[in-house]
Amino acid sequence: MTNILPSYVQGSWFTPTDASAAVDVRDASTGEIVTRVSSKGLDLAAALDYARTVGQASLGRLTFHQRALLLKQMALLLTERKPELYALSSRTGATKVDSWVDIDGGIGVLFTYSSKGRRELPNSSVYVDGPVEQLSKDGSFIARHIYSRLPGVAVQINAFNFPVWGALEKFAPAFLAGVPTLVKPATPSGYLAEAFVRILADSGLLPEGSLQLVSGSVPTLFDDVRLGDLVAFTGSASTAEKLRASESVQTGGVRFTNETDSINASVLGTDAVAGTPEFEAFVKQVVTEMTVKAGQKCTSIRRVIVPRTAMDDVITAVQQRIEQRIVLGDPRAEGVTMGPLASTEQRAEVLRQVARLQAAGGELVVGSTDAPAVVHADGTVAPAPDGAFVTPMLLRFDQTADAVHEVEAFGPVSSVLGYDTLDEAIALVRRGGGSLVTSIATHDPQVAVALMTGISAFNGRVLVLDRDDARTSTGHGSPVPQLVHGGPGRAGGGEELGGIRAVLHHMQRTAIQGSPEMLTAITGIWHQGAAAQAGDRHPFRKSLAELRLGDQILSASRTVNLDDIEHFAEFTGDTFYAHMNEEAAAANPFFPGRVAHGYLLVSWAAGLFVDPEPGPVLANYGLENLRFITPVSPGDSIRVALTAKQITPRETDEYGEVRWDAVLSNQNDEIVASYDVLTLVAKE
Amino acid sequence: MTNILPSYVQGSWFTPTDASAAVDVRDASTGEIVTRVSSKGLDLAAALDYARTVGQASLGRLTFHQRALLLKQMALLLTERKPELYALSSRTGATKVDSWVDIDGGIGVLFTYSSKGRRELPNSSVYVDGPVEQLSKDGSFIARHIYSRLPGVAVQINAFNFPVWGALEKFAPAFLAGVPTLVKPATPSGYLAEAFVRILADSGLLPEGSLQLVSGSVPTLFDDVRLGDLVAFTGSASTAEKLRASESVQTGGVRFTNETDSINASVLGTDAVAGTPEFEAFVKQVVTEMTVKAGQKCTSIRRVIVPRTAMDDVITAVQQRIEQRIVLGDPRAEGVTMGPLASTEQRAEVLRQVARLQAAGGELVVGSTDAPAVVHADGTVAPAPDGAFVTPMLLRFDQTADAVHEVEAFGPVSSVLGYDTLDEAIALVRRGGGSLVTSIATHDPQVAVALMTGISAFNGRVLVLDRDDARTSTGHGSPVPQLVHGGPGRAGGGEELGGIRAVLHHMQRTAIQGSPEMLTAITGIWHQGAAAQAGDRHPFRKSLAELRLGDQILSASRTVNLDDIEHFAEFTGDTFYAHMNEEAAAANPFFPGRVAHGYLLVSWAAGLFVDPEPGPVLANYGLENLRFITPVSPGDSIRVALTAKQITPRETDEYGEVRWDAVLSNQNDEIVASYDVLTLVAKE
Repeated sequence: MTNILPSYVQGSWFTPTDASAAVDVRDASTGEIVTRVSSKGLDLAAALDYARTVGQASLGRLTFHQRALLLKQMALLLTERKPELYALSSRTGATKVDSWVDIDGGIGVLFTYSSKGRRELPNSSVYVDGPVEQLSKDGSFIARHIYSRLPGVAVQINAFNFPVWGALEKFAPAFLAGVPTLVKPATPSGYLAEAFVRILADSGLLPEGSLQLVSGSVPTLFDDVRLGDLVAFTGSASTAEKLRASESVQTGGVRFTNETDSINASVLGTDAVAGTPEFEAFVKQVVTEMTVKAGQKCTSIRRVIVPRTAMDDVITAVQQRIEQRIVLGDPRAEGVTMGPLASTEQRAEVLRQVARLQAAGGELVVGSTDAPAVVHADGTVAPAPDGAFVTPMLLRFDQTADAVHEVEAFGPVSSVLGYDTLDEAIALVRRGGGSLVTSIATHDPQVAVALMTGISAFNGRVLVLDRDDARTSTGHGSPVPQLVHGGPGRAGGGEELGGIRAVLHHMQRTAIQGSPEMLTAITGIWHQGAAAQAGDRHPFRKSLAELRLGDQILSASRTVNLDDIEHFAEFTGDTFYAHMNEEAAAANPFFPGRVAHGYLLVSWAAGLFVDPEPGPVLANYGLENLRFITPVSPGDSIRVALTAKQITPRETDEYGEVRWDAVLSNQNDEIVASYDVLTLVAKE
Repeated sequence: MTNILPSYVQGSWFTPTDASAAVDVRDASTGEIVTRVSSKGLDLAAALDYARTVGQASLGRLTFHQRALLLKQMALLLTERKPELYALSSRTGATKVDSWVDIDGGIGVLFTYSSKGRRELPNSSVYVDGPVEQLSKDGSFIARHIYSRLPGVAVQINAFNFPVWGALEKFAPAFLAGVPTLVKPATPSGYLAEAFVRILADSGLLPEGSLQLVSGSVPTLFDDVRLGDLVAFTGSASTAEKLRASESVQTGGVRFTNETDSINASVLGTDAVAGTPEFEAFVKQVVTEMTVKAGQKCTSIRRVIVPRTAMDDVITAVQQRIEQRIVLGDPRAEGVTMGPLASTEQRAEVLRQVARLQAAGGELVVGSTDAPAVVHADGTVAPAPDGAFVTPMLLRFDQTADAVHEVEAFGPVSSVLGYDTLDEAIALVRRGGGSLVTSIATHDPQVAVALMTGISAFNGRVLVLDRDDARTSTGHGSPVPQLVHGGPGRAGGGEELGGIRAVLHHMQRTAIQGSPEMLTAITGIWHQGAAAQAGDRHPFRKSLAELRLGDQILSASRTVNLDDIEHFAEFTGDTFYAHMNEEAAAANPFFPGRVAHGYLLVSWAAGLFVDPEPGPVLANYGLENLRFITPVSPGDSIRVALTAKQITPRETDEYGEVRWDAVLSNQNDEIVASYDVLTLVAKE
């Protein structure tokens, strides 16, 4: 008797003792039983509470950067352990390429979030959104928006097609935000999720309670979640609909994110006729999207929208490419480029949907609904009655029909539709009712802009394919961690990934109003008007460990003469008339006459604030938000106030970033320029 | 017979001919009939379609800046016409101060959005979100996120308490986004909304179809909205719940934003004992929030959370301040500082909720549930049986009870609760289940940070009140257009306002992938790698009308010698050791030895790219995103590529902004520095 797949809850592994409700999970190619799945007897409410208490506490002790570093260590560990994951993955029907998308893709998400977390988030636990808002004239009452983590648990319900990527793309941003995860994989491929969770759990890298796994169903979930929790669901629109209707989502304040399959489109531009590189790239992409993962991708191209005059060319080219490139069979056999569907139930379902498309007027022009002969693991070619194989299928619609915009055959199935004008192409794309992704093959920017204007609000992502990016494109069907994944309407209305955006989905945005002093304390960023201390030492003499927000140097003042301006002009070659020609400068709407170069002012400011001797300040690596506000005329003098504004020690270097607030003023206390100076400062 | 209040749909005024369903609306102080309200016979579906077609088209012809300017013109017009709006407003029970909050507050939202729209949005119709994402090593495949407007109509359902502000705070961001509005005011004060819509409609400022008004109910609304539309609702949680359950929201992709009353809190810090400025400011704020608008504000303080030892002091001080300051009566009478509730129905409802609070253990320590004597319009003091008056009421809870965290008496009613520790204060705030706003009165940053850490995820806004901002604070109860308004859980889970954030709520975020050329065409921003043209004229010689994205100057190169570095150090005073001391510089982890000043490099770069003669380029007003990448040693040479990146003509000036992409390279084609140069350039 095959063992029941365990769950990982409250820090230990749980296996049901009562096997009565266990579901058999079978190898997609051979039909052999791989495992059995049940969550019977698991105390879900206790697992959720464990996350909310133990998980929140352990993640709360870490900063964004510390969490980001753990993600990297997890990524490195999973990279080492890839062979065992690949071996299991093939049992789900995945070819090597499919497994690469799932396993390496998932690990890649961890790497990207690790890197973005350290580059784009502060080394603390509050994220500041947007600029300071001045709410009083005297600067005593100001405001900012901050994001702080949700106080609950992120429940992640995944689809069967990408057991590793699907889990990690949700886990990484939740973890980075500091919100513990409870992951519920889909039953048909949950054994692969169990495998990677086991690797992580055994490693000791996981802060206590930060990741739990439920193998099997979670029927009481929506009774057990509450305000502060979030549920991220990937799967069918009909299941999503049921879940979203739960009281905890409707009125209980539980955040529900939804990413459902959609009827995605790819549009061949009017310029991209047969023989152009765009036509070739388009056909290649259509075949890839039909066959990778046997078309079981929520981002697959379901509608191939081409100029009516190009329909025959496209169908022929797709047909040829499939014949030349696609070998259907057990992924463990040499040379196989497309595996079975995930289960025989899925095969039956796909064939049902193809029949609906045919009934709606679709003509099957490539492939067949008959059971195909396939390559078996031993290299023989024969039918596989216990395997979940179907051939790639392309349908042709000469008249559009509602079904082609609504019915999804979640397998290697696409439909070709013709259009006469770009407006018609736009209308066809929009009939999908909201998609995850649409791609456009065109080399004509005007065609791209025209299509984009009509379709962007109906898509979460749009890819423009042409000769310039055909080789480097990551592909129509590939969500990348840098970009949002999700779309409006039929696609579920949710957003995942998108870099730090997905971290923020796990946090609450709050507007904070108060004095500069309070805003400084709450955000960890010094605000103009808060206390500043000159101290007895120049702040450049303080290491990261010694430096405090508000440490400040108020410089001496220095008078700018006409000689200085002319000298600077000559030295730099910047003889712009505003500096050199009194009459022309005075005619300029912004200057009273000849004025000092902005670059002269910031260069002098550095001379005024710098402490020249070797010390903890290692380098000025940049400047931000420089604005020249009041012009400086010959005879005016300038001075600078430089104040430590934000201190970001790095976790793995002997230094960190210090952002300084720089304000240049003139002899009348008018602000001449303001900017942030970015430096690297040693820790000790 | 009083006339029926008209609606403004499809460009003209509609009044029902069948008055059978009309509802009487009465003066809040006197009970006189003001108007009658019905939407009977109005074709809502046609109005929505008019917005989606005519309204979308007319707004689509305008850029963000053009729409922003129209908002300013509307604000100026309404400012002129304030007297008639104030006169009507007093009939709703609003005092002068209440009307100021509603009418001037609403006009202020228009001004703020006009200003933010022109400062923070491009002068086009696509908004770019976040940086370029590099998706291929060679730069041929890149991505960005854009926001484009939703293709439908923004339906705005408002509450009775702020008929002007409540409508304008939703209208302004929708209009700026380019999405037409259909506004449905609440029946009791809809005549004031009708008045301002009439002023706007008569003015000719409204693009066709950009604003429609339905006076009366919209029972079929949720059958008529669809993907691309959004509904923004303000009102009770129970109505919101029903609306959100509609199929068009649940599965149809209609965006639903919800802002409901919440059980907001104000916390007196442990340090803010009687006699401190914080205590005084706190008491003042509590009384203000109880009495302004007779407490009919979704942001009012319902729970006054104070150290248990301070309960008596707080109650006494609130009692005294109410006695000294609050005069209840007809807002048209001299000296009245608090008006009636909106209707006698509201009065009955408030008294019902007060009874529930009393039943749950609340002791009425200030005010009374008896019908009060009030100042009438003629100055006499007497009961007003047809007016909707209640006194301010404060309840004391010595034991907390569920009711105090759940029951809202939507009038001048608050409850005082005691706490012993900050953790207990946090737990009390959180029991509100998500609030629009919590305020904290403390002068101790540690108290502020401790409370904030516990409550921020449960609030849309938090105000820290202390001696530094007590005089300048905009107040606990005042949403400001710069900051988000909305909160999690009980507060509805939606966000409004927050500056440009609210504009983006009316748009779809889409990830765009493609070549630099395509990204340039789609975003209107030149991308590194897209075509650039040197042309026959220096780009500084081109006016805004002539300049094109990609216009470029490639400079000559210039060698940096040790003399130059020393000369620059002497001239600027910047003798930082990395420039002056070979040994110390070489010991620095980032430098090979002495290197040129970053300020020298950008100053020289300006000398290399500038065209010195008077011409269309008027000023360099700033620099952004400057990063020093490769150090420059004596003997190295630098050159610069300067390329027109973004062109933003202003609507009302003779010039506009041009952002230039600047890249400094060395003799080995390594990037030395990159930044954006910000200039003002004449249109002609």
